[in-house]
Order: sequence, then structure tokens, then C-alpha cells
Amino acid sequence: MKRTLGTCYYPEHWPSDIWAEDARRMAEAGLTWVRIGEFAWSRIEPTPDALTWDWLDQAIETLGQAGLKVVLGTPTATPPKWVLDKHPDMLAVDDQGRPRKFGSRRHYCFSHAGYLEECRRIVGLVAERYGQNPHVAAWQTDNEYGCHDTTLSYSDAARQGFRGWLREQFSAQGQNDGIAALNAAWGNVFWSMEYNDFDDIDLPNLTVTDPNPSHVLAFHRYTSDQVVAFNRAQVEIIRAHSQAPVTHNYMGRITDFDHFKVGADLDIASWDSYPLGFLEDRVGASVEQQRKFANQGHPDFQAFHHDLYRAVGRGRWWVMEQQPGPVNWAPYNPSPLPGMVRLWSWEAFAHGAEAVCYFRWRQAPFAQEQMHAGMLRPDSVDAPAIHEARQVADELKQAPEVQMVQASVALIFDYDADWAWSVQPQGVGLSYFGLIFDHYRALRRAGISVDILPAHCRDFSGYDLVLAPGMMHMPGDLKQALTGGNAQVLIGPRSAARDANMSIPVPLPPAFPGLDVTVSRVETLRPDQPVALTSGGAITGYLEELEGTADIITQTTTGSAVAMRAGPVTYMGGWGDDAALDVLISDLCTRAGLATMALPDGVRIRDTATERFWFNYNAEPIATEAGVLPAAGVLRVELT
Amino acid sequence: MKRTLGTCYYPEHWPSDIWAEDARRMAEAGLTWVRIGEFAWSRIEPTPDALTWDWLDQAIETLGQAGLKVVLGTPTATPPKWVLDKHPDMLAVDDQGRPRKFGSRRHYCFSHAGYLEECRRIVGLVAERYGQNPHVAAWQTDNEYGCHDTTLSYSDAARQGFRGWLREQFSAQGQNDGIAALNAAWGNVFWSMEYNDFDDIDLPNLTVTDPNPSHVLAFHRYTSDQVVAFNRAQVEIIRAHSQAPVTHNYMGRITDFDHFKVGADLDIASWDSYPLGFLEDRVGASVEQQRKFANQGHPDFQAFHHDLYRAVGRGRWWVMEQQPGPVNWAPYNPSPLPGMVRLWSWEAFAHGAEAVCYFRWRQAPFAQEQMHAGMLRPDSVDAPAIHEARQVADELKQAPEVQMVQASVALIFDYDADWAWSVQPQGVGLSYFGLIFDHYRALRRAGISVDILPAHCRDFSGYDLVLAPGMMHMPGDLKQALTGGNAQVLIGPRSAARDANMSIPVPLPPAFPGLDVTVSRVETLRPDQPVALTSGGAITGYLEELEGTADIITQTTTGSAVAMRAGPVTYMGGWGDDAALDVLISDLCTRAGLATMALPDGVRIRDTATERFWFNYNAEPIATEAGVLPAAGVLRVELT
Amino acid sequence: MKRTLGTCYYPEHWPSDIWAEDARRMAEAGLTWVRIGEFAWSRIEPTPDALTWDWLDQAIETLGQAGLKVVLGTPTATPPKWVLDKHPDMLAVDDQGRPRKFGSRRHYCFSHAGYLEECRRIVGLVAERYGQNPHVAAWQTDNEYGCHDTTLSYSDAARQGFRGWLREQFSAQGQNDGIAALNAAWGNVFWSMEYNDFDDIDLPNLTVTDPNPSHVLAFHRYTSDQVVAFNRAQVEIIRAHSQAPVTHNYMGRITDFDHFKVGADLDIASWDSYPLGFLEDRVGASVEQQRKFANQGHPDFQAFHHDLYRAVGRGRWWVMEQQPGPVNWAPYNPSPLPGMVRLWSWEAFAHGAEAVCYFRWRQAPFAQEQMHAGMLRPDSVDAPAIHEARQVADELKQAPEVQMVQASVALIFDYDADWAWSVQPQGVGLSYFGLIFDHYRALRRAGISVDILPAHCRDFSGYDLVLAPGMMHMPGDLKQALTGGNAQVLIGPRSAARDANMSIPVPLPPAFPGLDVTVSRVETLRPDQPVALTSGGAITGYLEELEGTADIITQTTTGSAVAMRAGPVTYMGGWGDDAALDVLISDLCTRAGLATMALPDGVRIRDTATERFWFNYNAEPIATEAGVLPAAGVLRVELT
Ligand SMILES: [Zn+2]
Ligand SMILES: [Zn+2]
Ligand SMILES: [Zn+2]
Repeated sequence: MKRTLGTCYYPEHWPSDIWAEDARRMAEAGLTWVRIGEFAWSRIEPTPDALTWDWLDQAIETLGQAGLKVVLGTPTATPPKWVLDKHPDMLAVDDQGRPRKFGSRRHYCFSHAGYLEECRRIVGLVAERYGQNPHVAAWQTDNEYGCHDTTLSYSDAARQGFRGWLREQFSAQGQNDGIAALNAAWGNVFWSMEYNDFDDIDLPNLTVTDPNPSHVLAFHRYTSDQVVAFNRAQVEIIRAHSQAPVTHNYMGRITDFDHFKVGADLDIASWDSYPLGFLEDRVGASVEQQRKFANQGHPDFQAFHHDLYRAVGRGRWWVMEQQPGPVNWAPYNPSPLPGMVRLWSWEAFAHGAEAVCYFRWRQAPFAQEQMHAGMLRPDSVDAPAIHEARQVADELKQAPEVQMVQASVALIFDYDADWAWSVQPQGVGLSYFGLIFDHYRALRRAGISVDILPAHCRDFSGYDLVLAPGMMHMPGDLKQALTGGNAQVLIGPRSAARDANMSIPVPLPPAFPGLDVTVSRVETLRPDQPVALTSGGAITGYLEELEGTADIITQTTTGSAVAMRAGPVTYMGGWGDDAALDVLISDLCTRAGLATMALPDGVRIRDTATERFWFNYNAEPIATEAGVLPAAGVLRVELT
Repeated sequence: MKRTLGTCYYPEHWPSDIWAEDARRMAEAGLTWVRIGEFAWSRIEPTPDALTWDWLDQAIETLGQAGLKVVLGTPTATPPKWVLDKHPDMLAVDDQGRPRKFGSRRHYCFSHAGYLEECRRIVGLVAERYGQNPHVAAWQTDNEYGCHDTTLSYSDAARQGFRGWLREQFSAQGQNDGIAALNAAWGNVFWSMEYNDFDDIDLPNLTVTDPNPSHVLAFHRYTSDQVVAFNRAQVEIIRAHSQAPVTHNYMGRITDFDHFKVGADLDIASWDSYPLGFLEDRVGASVEQQRKFANQGHPDFQAFHHDLYRAVGRGRWWVMEQQPGPVNWAPYNPSPLPGMVRLWSWEAFAHGAEAVCYFRWRQAPFAQEQMHAGMLRPDSVDAPAIHEARQVADELKQAPEVQMVQASVALIFDYDADWAWSVQPQGVGLSYFGLIFDHYRALRRAGISVDILPAHCRDFSGYDLVLAPGMMHMPGDLKQALTGGNAQVLIGPRSAARDANMSIPVPLPPAFPGLDVTVSRVETLRPDQPVALTSGGAITGYLEELEGTADIITQTTTGSAVAMRAGPVTYMGGWGDDAALDVLISDLCTRAGLATMALPDGVRIRDTATERFWFNYNAEPIATEAGVLPAAGVLRVELT
Repeated sequence: MKRTLGTCYYPEHWPSDIWAEDARRMAEAGLTWVRIGEFAWSRIEPTPDALTWDWLDQAIETLGQAGLKVVLGTPTATPPKWVLDKHPDMLAVDDQGRPRKFGSRRHYCFSHAGYLEECRRIVGLVAERYGQNPHVAAWQTDNEYGCHDTTLSYSDAARQGFRGWLREQFSAQGQNDGIAALNAAWGNVFWSMEYNDFDDIDLPNLTVTDPNPSHVLAFHRYTSDQVVAFNRAQVEIIRAHSQAPVTHNYMGRITDFDHFKVGADLDIASWDSYPLGFLEDRVGASVEQQRKFANQGHPDFQAFHHDLYRAVGRGRWWVMEQQPGPVNWAPYNPSPLPGMVRLWSWEAFAHGAEAVCYFRWRQAPFAQEQMHAGMLRPDSVDAPAIHEARQVADELKQAPEVQMVQASVALIFDYDADWAWSVQPQGVGLSYFGLIFDHYRALRRAGISVDILPAHCRDFSGYDLVLAPGMMHMPGDLKQALTGGNAQVLIGPRSAARDANMSIPVPLPPAFPGLDVTVSRVETLRPDQPVALTSGGAITGYLEELEGTADIITQTTTGSAVAMRAGPVTYMGGWGDDAALDVLISDLCTRAGLATMALPDGVRIRDTATERFWFNYNAEPIATEAGVLPAAGVLRVELT
């Protein structure tokens, strides 16, 4: 498929007399796409119902005339002040009970019916006006759902919504007595937490000590469903007026709502990739790695999200915002190493991105992001990013095709499991995302290209190896699907450890068909107490005690079973460190008939249908079997 | 006295058809006691005044028929939701002004009269029904007062109560003008904080900078009195219906209320001992010790509380909840080393416990404590703890008697002093509990068995050495009682440093009869600035400048007096590190005619009237004068 | 000018029958000044309008009769409880939205009109009564504005005031449409933050993510103006009744309001100097320096503030409170090394202090500061400080004159720039104060005496070197004034980086006349990623990319320009570490014709018109060109 580039533009930030020159320069730089409009509500509707379309009409026309395709965003992430005046209780409430005020963005609660109605109205107006505009070639709903911790809200609206949602969930199960079903499913008899009515149920914040994990998990699920419904409402309205595809721009490592369920209503998934900002504020890398890759970004974090959003988009995905230079929001905001903007772009294409858009066209001299670099400086002079974008554009002209192919290895990512771990980490710092990313990194170190799969996947045909570590609730049909194929399967730690409502099932976990392994006890470990394995590496953080007749394939140096196997299913009863995961992945790949490599630190590959891409995230050249990779180097080698 | 074992059981968590088998297995394992009922309010009274006793009748009968003795808990730590609906302002309010919501436990304010009335009602109903039941052999009031920081509440009820309490306290002192007496006692002229009426007084939270320490200390005392009154109300009702002894299960290192004053209304003190959880979350040990004893618990922390609660119970005390495996609530939750459950049980008996009950019988698969181990797994299979419990039961059959005897060394523990230090630490991390525990550890290292005494003790006969470091307010009759006996006495740092209302007395501290020592200045030290002593070790954290004619017995390497002595009284003007405390304790014991040992790290002894118990908290065997102690080993040697 | 000593006294804390003896001892110790009254409102007016002057009449008379001069404080920092009852909404509100309660001090919001009226009333009454009293020789307004984070308040009063202040600011600019001018100036189009009316504008707390930096900066400016107005109201009333000079006692490193603007209404600036407390809680020194100078205080922190307040007072300044021993409020509170109280006093005089007053006369045995040392112990015995004060008094008798002279080097300190940096640090821990203090320390290490200048200074005549690093907004006339003289000028990093409303100007910064340097990009660095310079040292934290034709005078080891120069103006595009700043200062001084020294760590000098003062902040003697300085030594050498 042909790959394209784009940028994010805010015509409302600039005098209209420079729009045409901006558009010309975008086209000249080789860009195809220009995203606009997603924060412009106050210009579209400055006061209640006073619509001012002329500027937007003109902006779209100007861009279109330059040959650019417009991605038009709905402006619902930034309702103007007068919307809040109409709906004073539309603000999300934080877990400390404080309404989150106007003055930045994302100041709304997903559960607020009045605000949802306002969104339907404005999206309808925008879609009606531009749904058939020939220059509007794609749509974006809202902006970065969940960013700034805006998914969970402890508002009155959320409380009412949660009660209704629970009533619906449990009334089905409990026939005439839904609340009894809920009490039983959650074990509310514990500590006399039993409710007599759904209206007794409060949100699980500010409790004296931990609330019931079933209660918290249900609130996560409820909240995720509100995001899905909020997004779906917009998509349905856009589709009623336009044939253009609809996307939403997700973020990195935001797991508060189910991206797959939101994605099911989209045509294309997209995400906003800030490698340097993320390395500082969310990757979770060691201090040494943070220092080493401070100007390059983590070698695996973007790749992981590329694979994730390829799955969310069912094959179609973009980078909607690509970091072009220093940003303004991380603890420290260094400059990218020369070449990295190009490398990041190619890493995205190698994973199947249809488009990479640089955020933003011109650095804004005002407001919150004035220190966020753009492709142009505030004085309109070319910034470094535009030079690298031009190089990518040139390279794309020569070789625009990148063909995706199903990978041999699949890794399940389950948002519900992430919530379950967050509700019950059992040890400081233990998270599902961390566990999955550790496995992903091990696969990348071994030179393996990976497909990420959603939790609802039941067809694993074509995969030689499927990994589902840490997936706390595994429905019976998933267990069947995993064991029914030809793939090697890795589960554990904590896989299938809970029933659908966050209780421990009996028989004890994992209760996997054909695998006589029982987790008889669980412990979590201090970071300074790794448990060494005979096969190399160690267990850190999370360790299970295993019983059963399956083969022991890994043990601690004191003789306890850590990994056990029967047929194609391997159960790993602990969180391996990098060395332990290297051994485990190597072993599984060998059994799956897959070749592995031992890539140098910072060097990564990605295979497409016809090519192998080499990436060097290091600040110095590295010799590889494909030749010497320059610092920040990209190499594209045909597969033979 | 004969020692017994028990467990904590929640019949309401399980189908009634397995109760009999559970009871049979408890008896088979050698257990005598089964505690039930303390969180069961929602099952006793599911809706207002709808009492359902049948299940509890049956549970008690089933347990009793198996030969078990029931400890029946009052359910007041977990009022059901409908109780809160009746009394919406019964919630405690945290120091940030937020009500602490329903959804876990201990969601009540001790000052709330309406809730106290509900408690009187439900306790009356329970006591009336089971007061003469032959299987109910003991009672427990509520559960873990103070756990989850639930003692201090900044509610309206507390504000009103505090004002009335102050009015009563000071009106006596001040004749017709109580508020003037309060202003004078607290020094409210400072910063124009003078009140014209008791109703002017607010609770001491959310002030711009530190509130008056006298104000805060008074609020601690008021709050402690509410806990005492709350507990007494229950005890009086139980006693009106039952002859069985009444206990309460205290926690580790909770000092927010005066355990001795609550204990004065009980027949038996008990506490909940979680060695691994406590080591991670409250002992305050060094990182090295936390790592070394991660699977064993701190060698002295349980022993300290055993001695403390022996004093609180005036000789009669239990471990009501003994950790049986990993728990769910500490930062990290490792498994105990094999043998530790047995060792912990014997350490308790060696300190005089009448009973040790394991928490809990079967691990709950649901709700907040689903990852808290039990004697059985959730699938009813024996967990490791039951094997060690059986071993203890067998050993108890062979040698059930453990005879307590008054120790030679006494250590005063004063809850009021802990509050005073917390109000005015003067240096980060300095606490009374920490100071006392450092002295206790030094005594344990020296092989000394210790009696802990309450602040109100005035009879020290029989002791050769009495320690009262850090006791900030020492009434005159206590000073007299300490100097009037034959014992060596250690005071300081900070002993007698404040008057009854938290002001510095003149003459300056300690103003001890017969001891010409004056604390002329106080400084606190950075942790990286220990002050070395000529006799070994160093002062850390807290250092006083001393004047006077008493003998200087310890000096800094720069020549300042640190410890001084006249006759039997030694004043220590600083907080010694372990090495300094070893020297000090050794010197004091020598003067008291007591032999000391230098026990290896992790090895501890405890002497009863007839035996010496040896305990090895290490993960490897250790050679001692009593022979080689296996890892987690216990040795019982007759004293000759 | 003749230099004097004093103390702070609270007659209301002590029985009146000891006042005369206290006064006698003050005079005997060589003190001239005694400050009283600043917390005594509840004694002057115990209930509404019930004035009791007799005690204060008597106290002033007693002190005066002993030959002491009284500094009389207005009591507005501690309104009694009844004032709050009259104005329940006068409390400041913290940034979390919580009113800050009664029970300590400074519990008022500067924006509250009702409280301002109460202050006018009480100050009027005090000024009327004592304005002509022959013993009242000076006045102090309030106490330590801004202490305990009490400048910024998020109250309703502040919200209303801020709206009015903005309306006034922007209506001028915007003619008929002030709100459009504000929207344009702040760039509110970004994220649809545009307002339709000034009443739409809220305070910038509790927003979902960062509020608009222009919004926050405006709120800082508004708040500062309230402090100025609050203080001016008092000064005007005092001046109407008295000829005595008026001062206010500022604190160390409080930058929340513009001290120069408050100072413009004062006759004398003064500040409260707590070298040991400050070193622990606000200097920002390395752990090594904190340990090394724990008993001496930072060698430059007091000197910096002395120079700052000399500027604030337009030459006239005092130390109103000098630490005399351990304090009570820092994380750790050590004792000063013997000799330091004397050294601190002389350091102040060497910088031009007219008076140094020790806080406090006698240590209070009660309330919040009971562990704050005084010149006397609570039992009235001499504490160590009084001995050192007597020595200073004796030394002053022999050589009372210290003559100030304009320094050769000036350093601009701009409160507005500090707010701008705090609004937009762009990297953790980066602050304007820190940057300025790093430059000041480098100057001190080089033996340079410094004048600090306010941002509004336009006359730099007489200076050979002027430094204005980090001054984010530089008006055009300031740029002209700096380049128009004969001085070498240092600017950058971040100098002139923002326009008056916190946007990036185009042409890009610094746009300095005659200097072709453009900051083309900015990055911030992890603390573990210093960027080495070829000339020695490194850039840490903040690094700019520079373009232009000016001479490159410093480069990174990888060849990027870091400092550039044209004529007398040097632009430094990064935050140098100590080594880099030593090179830079040395180079600039050489160009300015100024000799530099390389003083040993902890040794500092200060030149007056006729003398060089040497100070040894070390705990051991140090050999210098002026001879061996004893530990804590002071040497006074005539300049020849
Ligand atoms: Zn067109
Ligand atoms: Zn019976
Ligand atoms: Zn007079």
C-alpha cells in the first residue's frame, strides 16, 4: 500500500492571509494530509447558536486548492465556556471529589447526558456542512480520549449512570433480584457491604481502605462503555453525512478504556506518538535506558503501539501526531537526535501505518503548547523536522509500497486485564501493561515481528506462537480456542486467575484444558529480592507456587517449579526479568519453528511481506549482519 | 498455664452445608477457638430491625458440637449501608476535610452519638441472644480500632465533642473562667490565638502553618477518650448478659489511642500479628533488614507487641489473628519461610499468650482480602499454614505449660508521649515509638526479657532496671516513684521535657529529684550527620546539650556531655544508634546486676519462669551456646 | 554609617513585672532596638472594639525608659478569632480549593475587602495612639508577607478581584472590547478558551491539564498587586500619624509578590535571616553542601538577600530577625557552630545593614515556636546567642562605621521573571531564582561584590558589568539602556524570551539591538545528561540552539554554539554548571577590567568603600591571603 505524510494545522491560530502560503509549503514538503478543526469550537460557535462557518469554509478551500486532503476533527474535546455555563455539572470530578475546572481541555464527564447532547448537536452541524466537501477526506472524533486522566469521573452523573449500568448488567443474571446477584458476584457479604438496592451503590473512591475489587473493576468497565458510547454517537452522525473514513487519535499507554471497543466503530485507528516525551513520563524504562535513549525514544515503545493500533484499526492505522522536536509536557524535554524524526516515520510505515502526520505545522507562540516544536518555527522559518519530513517524502516517492503480512507470533492485549491488575496489583509497581511490554520487548530483542490481538479474538490460525500472559479473566471459549490450534501457547503468570467478576475461581487457576497445573499460592517480591532460575535470569515482582503433573521446564535455584508445560501449552508462574524472558522466548520460538536473533541493544528489525527494516536507535553506528547502521539509521532490505 | 490454638471463621461466607466439615477439620487440626461474627451485621440485620438469627444460631451450634469454643465479635466495625442512610453524618472526616465513604470498613466517627446508639442497640441484641450460649466462651468488641487511620476524625460531631470535652477539662481548672485557663495553658497569646469561648475552638486541621501543639495534643487526648468510651459502652452491655471474658483485637504500631485505657475495660488483650506485612509497611527497619527478614518478619517487632499487650491485658493476652501466609495489603507480600508460622506461634507463647488464632480458616475467593492466605486454600485444600499449626498443636499436647514471671527489666510505653512526639517531632522521622523500639531491640540483642509498663505505673518493685526514655510528660509522683526504689533508672532524651499541656516547664527539664542535669538546648541532626561518641556508636537525629554537676558518663568525641548520672538515675541526652545503645544497655545491666549476651543477628531468646526459648529468625542454621538452631528454628531449654 | 543591634520581644508573653529587668538586660547586652507588637491583636482588642492599651503603653514606656528604641509592628498577620467570625470568607483558599483555617497565623486573603477594612481600622488606632510616642522609632507593617505560601489565594474574593483587575488592564488596551484584547494577548483561541466577558474568567487552579501560562502569569501579577495595595494602605495610615520610618520584614526566597513594588512604599527594607533553617528547606544546595554547612548556613544565601534587600530598601535595610540558635520549623534543626551568630551579624553589616535584630529575646515555653531558640533560655538564663551578640556590640563600639559604595557588578532580579519561569519551567526543578543564585554564587566565588538591581532600573551608569540572565520579558527601553552604556552585559538563557503577556515574540528572542543571535530551538536536559563545553564545565538543565553572525565564544564539545557575543553584549544560551559559570564570569570580569579571585570553598569576601571583610563559613581554619581565618572567623581588612 502507498504511504503518505501529513501535518496538523490550526488555521484559526493565524491570519487568513498566510493560509495559502502555508498550504503551498505543506504540499511542497511532500505532505498529503492536513488535520484541522479539532479544538475550534469557540470559533465555530463563539456564543450559543451563533455559527460562524466562513473562516472554516475558506480554510478548507485554501488547503484543498493546494492539493491537500483534509482530516476534519470534531471539536468536542474543548467545549467553550458558554457550554459549561449551560451545563455547570458537566465537569468530570477527580477521585478526590474535586470538579476539574475550565481553562485547559477535556473538561467534561463522559457520563453527562447534557454534554453528550451538545456534542451530538455540534457534530451534526459540522458533518452536515462538510460531509460532502470534496476536500474533507477523513474525520477525527474528539481528541485523545483519556489524556490527562480524563476517563474516570466521580461525578453525580457517573454515579447515576453506574447504578443504571449495574442494574442492567445484573438484572439479566439475577432474574427478579438483580441486587442479590450483584451481592453474590462481588462477595459483598465480606465486611457487610451488601446492598438492598442499586441506588445504594456509590462510586468506589474515598473509601476508608480498599474498596471491593469487584466494585472497582465494574466501575472501570462502566466508564469504558461510556467512552465507547460517546464516540459511537459521533461516528453515527458523521456517517449519516459523509462517506469519508472516521478515525480517533489514541495516545500512548492509556489503558483506561477499551481501545478495541472504541475502534470497532472506527474505520481507521490512529495514535499520537511522542517518543521522547513518553520515554520520560510513561514508558517505565530503567534510568539507564532513559539516559541512553533520551534523544531517541525507547526502541520498542512506539513499535508496540504501532502493532496495537494496527489491531485496533483491523489493519488500517495512522500516526496522527508525530513528535517533530522537543515537546513541552514531559519532566524533561530534550531535542531528538538528528535523523530520529525520519527513523520514527519509517518505523511506523514498517509496521503498516498508512500515514504519518507531524504535529504541528507551525509552533504556536502562545498558550499551553508554545514550547512544543513544529515543522516551522513560530517565525515561519523551517524547523529541523521539516527537513527530515522532506527526506521521508522523497524516499516514499521512490518506494511507496509497504506490504503487511500476518506475523508468526501473536500477543493478546486485554484492556480488562489491565484494569484488573490496576485494581489488585498485589505488589508496588506491578502492572499488566508492564508485563505485556516486557514480553513484547523480549520478542523485539529476538528479532520477532508481532501481531497484537484483542481479548475477543478466537481465531488463532496462522500463528505459530500465541502469548497471553497476565490475562486475568479468560473465558472458557478462549481457553478452548487457544488449545485447539497448532500454535505454541504461553500463559501465566496470573492468566485465568479470576472469574468474570474478579473473584478467584474454584477449581483454582489456571484450570486450562489438558494442562495439569494449579497455582496453589501467590507471592509478590521486593525489587531487591529476585529469585534466581536455574536456566538463567530471575523472577522479579510476582511469583506463583505451582502444583500438578505437567512437565516442569523452569525451576528456581532452590528447586521450585516456575514454568510447566503440557503439549503446546506453557504456563509461566512468575514475572521473568529480561534474561529469563530471553530464555523463555527463545525456547518457545524454537518449539514453534521460528528463528530468533540476538539483536544489539538499540537495534531493532521489523519484517513486512517483502522486506526487512533495520532501525538503529543508538547515537552511534552499529555493525550488524545487514551492514553498518549509522546513528539513527534506517535500512530497508528485501527479503529473499 | 495451658496454651491453645484457634482460627477466625466466617460462616456467612460459605454455604451452611460445609460448616460441619469445616468444624471437624478445625478440631482435627488441634484448634480450640473459633472467632466469628465480627463483620456480619448485614446478615444479622439485613434491613432496619429485620433480625435474622437462625444462621448464626446454627453456625454457633455446629462449631460448638465439634468441640470448639466460640469467640463472638460485635459487628460494629462494618455497619451496613442502611445504618449510614439513617445517620448520613456518621462518617469520619479525614484531615483534608473529606468524609470517608462507605464501601470498605471502619466507616464511622467515634464522636457520633447516633452511631454509638446504633452500636449499643446491636450489641445489646447480640449479647442478649448469645450471652448465655454455652459455646460462646469469649467476646470481641468491634475489630482493630484505629486501623486504616480511623481514630482521628475531623467531623462536625468531633468538633462539638472536642469543645465539650475541653470545657469540662478546663472549667475544673479555671473555676469560673475555663476559657482563660485554656488560653493560659496553651499559650494562645502567641499569634493572637486566644479564644473567648469554647465554641470558638475548631479542630486543628488545615491551618495555614502548624497549629498550636497544645491544641493538637488535646485533640489526640480527646479522640483517644472517645475510643475508650465507645469500647466501654460495648463491654458494659456484654457484661450485663454474659460471664465470658471480653477482649478487643488491637493492631501493630497503632498508637492513636491509649491502648491501656481501652484495656482497663477488657478481661483479655489481644492483637493481630502480621510479621511480614508489618515489616514492609510499618516496622521502620533499614532496607537491609527488610530484605534479610522479608520472609521471616522482624525479629523484635512481634516480641515487642507481645510484651506490650501482656501489659495492656494485665497479664492475660492472645494473638487473635496470626499471619498464615502471604497477605494482600503490604507494599510487597512475600510467603513466609517454612517454619515461620510455627516460630511466630511459639514466640507468642514464650511471651505468655494464652491462645494463638490463625487468620483465617479458608482463604476467601472474593472481595478485598481474596489474596490473603488462610489455613485452607479457596478450594478447601490444606494450605501450608495448617501443617505448621498441627505441629504446634502436637507440641502443645506434649508441653502445654508456659509459666510467666516478672522480668528484671521494665520499659515504660506511654501513648501520650507518642502523641506529643508526633505533634512536635522537631526532626523528620523522629518518633517516640521508634525511640522505644530501638531501646527494646537493644535489650533483645542483649538477651534480656522485658516487661512493658503503662505510664500510670507507680510501683516498680521487683525490677532491677527501669527505662523511660522519651516520656515527654512525667508527673511528679512518677519521678518520685522511679527514684524511690532500688532499680537503675534510664531517662532521656526528652523525658519530662513538657508539662501536662505541652509547654516547656521551668525549671528546665528534666528537673529530676537528686539529679543535677539540665537540658540547656536541643538540636536535631540530619541523618548524614551522626555525632560520634567516645564510648562507641553515635547519636543520630536528636541531641541535647546538658548542664549540671551529675557525673558525665558518655561524651561526644568533641567533649560534650551526652549521658550523665547521679546515683541510680542515668539521663541520656540523645538518641543513640544501635552501637551506642548496646554500650548503654550493657552498662546499665551491669550496674543492675544483670547478665547480658551478644546474640547473633536474627537470634533471640525469651525466658519464662522455667524455660529459655531460643528463636532463629534467619534463613540459615546458626550455632549458639544452646546448640545449632535450624533456619526458622525454635528451641526450648529448661532453666536450671 | 553607624550600625546597631536589636531583638524581638513579646511583652504580652510574660508577666509585666519582669519587663523592666528584660529591658535592662537588653540594654546591657548592647542592643538598641526592640521590636514588639506584631502578633498582639488579641491583647489590644480582645473582643470587638474593646481596646486595651494600658499594657502596651506600659511596655513601650518600660522599654523606652531603659534606653531602647521601639519598632512597633501592626498586628494584621494574626487577626483574632472574632475578626474571622465577622468575615467568615476572609480566609485564603489553597490551590486545592480548601479554605485555610484559623489556628496559626496569616489566615487571610489579600483580596478580601472586609479584612482590609479591619486592618485599616486597627492600624489607624495603633498609629494614632503611638504615632507621636517618643520611644516608637520605627514601624513594621504586618509580618512576613507570603510566608507559609499565603500570597496566592483561590477565594471568591480573589476571583472577583482578578476579573476586575483584568478588565482594567485590558480595557485600556482594547478600547471598546477589552475581552477581545485579552483573548488575543493570551492566545485563548488555542483549545477554545476564549471568553465572552471578564466574568467568564476563573482562577487558574484545578484545571484538567496545564492552564494557559498567560492566565497564570496574570494571576501572579494580580496577586502581587494585592500585596502592594494591602501594604500601602497601612503605610499611608502610619505616615498620617508618625514621622518614624516604616519597614516590612520580608523572608528568604519568597518570590510570590514583587518585593520592589512593596518596598517602594517603605522607608527601610528588612528581612528575617535563618541561615540554618533556610539551608535545610529552601536554598536548593546539593546534599554535600547541606551536610558541610549544616551548622553554618549557606555561604551565599544570606549575602544574596542582603544585597537584594539593600536594593529593595533603596540603600536602607535591616535584618529584622536573625537566627540565634536552633529553630523549630526546618526538616532538621541543628545548632549553629560557635561564632556563627557573630559571623552572620557581620556579614549583614558588611553588606550595609543598618541594624541586626536577634529573634527572639527569650525562648517561649509555649505554642508553635517553643523549640525556637532565643537570646535567653525559657528560664531566663543567657543562651549562647547573647554572648555572641555582646561580642558584636563590643566590636561595634570600636568600629561602628561601615561605608557602602556602588559595586562594579550589577545583577538584575526580576520577580516577574520568577513567576514566568514557575509557570513554564519546561524542565523539573528549573527556576529563575536558582539561575540567578547560581550566577550570584559564581560572582561570590570570584570575590566580586555585587549590587542587585530591580527590573525597572534603566540607569546602569557606574557598573562595569551587568547581568540579566533569565529575565523572560525585557521591555525595549531596557534593552536600549543595557546596550547604551559602557558595561559588559550578560543575558541569556531565556532573556527576552517572552512578550509582556507570556507569548513568544517574533522576531524570535532575544532580538537584542546590535546582537545577531536568534534562539532557534530550546531543549531541557535530564540531570544525568550534562552537555560538556570545550572551555570547561557543562550545560545542565536548559540548553538553547543559537543562530546568527555574532561571535561564538563558547561551544559544546560537539561543536554547537552556546555563548555568542557582539560588542559588549554576551548571550549565554544555556544554564552553566559551577565550572562553566566560573569560566564565564572570569571572562566577563576580565573584559570589564575587574580582578577576580578563586576563593576557597566556604570562604567569602565583601568589599565596602574602605574595607574588605573576610568570612570563613567552614568548621575549620583556612589559610587565605589575608591570613588564617579561624573556623566561623571574620576578618576586617582596610582597603588600601
Ligand atoms: Zn474546493
Ligand atoms: Zn450446643
Ligand atoms: Zn517615655
